Amino acid sequence: MKKGLLIVVSAPSGCGKGTILGEILKEPNYYYSVSATTRQPREGEEDGVHYRFLQREQFEALIKDGAFIEHAEYCQNYYGTLQAPIEENRALGRNVILEIEVQGAMQIRKTCPDAVFIFIAPPSIETLRERLMNRGTETAEVIAERVAQAERETECAKDYDYVIINDVLETAISDFKAIVRAEECKTKNN
Amino acid sequence: MKKGLLIVVSAPSGCGKGTILGEILKEPNYYYSVSATTRQPREGEEDGVHYRFLQREQFEALIKDGAFIEHAEYCQNYYGTLQAPIEENRALGRNVILEIEVQGAMQIRKTCPDAVFIFIAPPSIETLRERLMNRGTETAEVIAERVAQAERETECAKDYDYVIINDVLETAISDFKAIVRAEECKTKNN
Repeated sequence: MKKGLLIVVSAPSGCGKGTILGEILKEPNYYYSVSATTRQPREGEEDGVHYRFLQREQFEALIKDGAFIEHAEYCQNYYGTLQAPIEENRALGRNVILEIEVQGAMQIRKTCPDAVFIFIAPPSIETLRERLMNRGTETAEVIAERVAQAERETECAKDYDYVIINDVLETAISDFKAIVRAEECKTKNN
Repeated sequence: MKKGLLIVVSAPSGCGKGTILGEILKEPNYYYSVSATTRQPREGEEDGVHYRFLQREQFEALIKDGAFIEHAEYCQNYYGTLQAPIEENRALGRNVILEIEVQGAMQIRKTCPDAVFIFIAPPSIETLRERLMNRGTETAEVIAERVAQAERETECAKDYDYVIINDVLETAISDFKAIVRAEECKTKNN
């Protein structure tokens, strides 16, 4: 069986990443990688669906075992991506989607050199600001911070293999599918 | 304006390359690269359509000028690919399709490192043999030679960026389009 791809996706907040990935995951033969964390589950969060909730000692033992392809500590909680479920699913021919921020993606570049890196970008910073404002769910301050962060993250787009500009959603989705198909046609994956 | 791609395509005879490229060239913004040659035009061949017909002295002067991205001599005739029309069309944002055999493609690897290399392969050598036999236009001897050559050429598929297996024509065409779209999304082309 042909091994599935590992597709690492990053995008600034407000770029429509969730909508695009939601559409992609409707296709057969995809597996969405669930992060592990030591933080407490929030209301409605399910183990294995939203996160794999681990005890701190378990997480640290797994770090020692080299079980993570990336991990980091934020606010006294660990977050990380376990290699085993990714490799198991790839071996079954499934394409694994891994949603992660820029620093995590760059760690994976080193630990999984055969991964495919896709950055989803807004058509412009101005469009992103408008989208966030039209949502009407964030304060002006939060929007300003999100926009500033998006600008910094978009600087990193050059370190990805592909950039999808999410201007028209349908085009962005078909671009994503085209990238996956092209990667499947790559000589090294055949 | 975004520069067009240079797409180099090779395929053994009988792999459906002509049909696939015919469909691709129906799309807007493509330019089909016409080879130059010193051989005499055959009945019905038009200059600039089937070949650019050049005098031997012209061809040799152009070699000296470094005007070709690849050239070779067969049976006392020169054949080659001129760089200028390719670069002019790419500068206008057109994707250039260059159909060429394996040795020529490998020369272009060196002269145009930013080109995209696609190999179109039959699902199997047995299928290729059947297809050539069903055409009914070639003798058993010619078919045997074509099949042997296809086997040798398919060995070279690993030196291409992408391999499209032409099993179902519609899939092969959509694979080709996906590769082009993915290449357009590549960070280095953005």
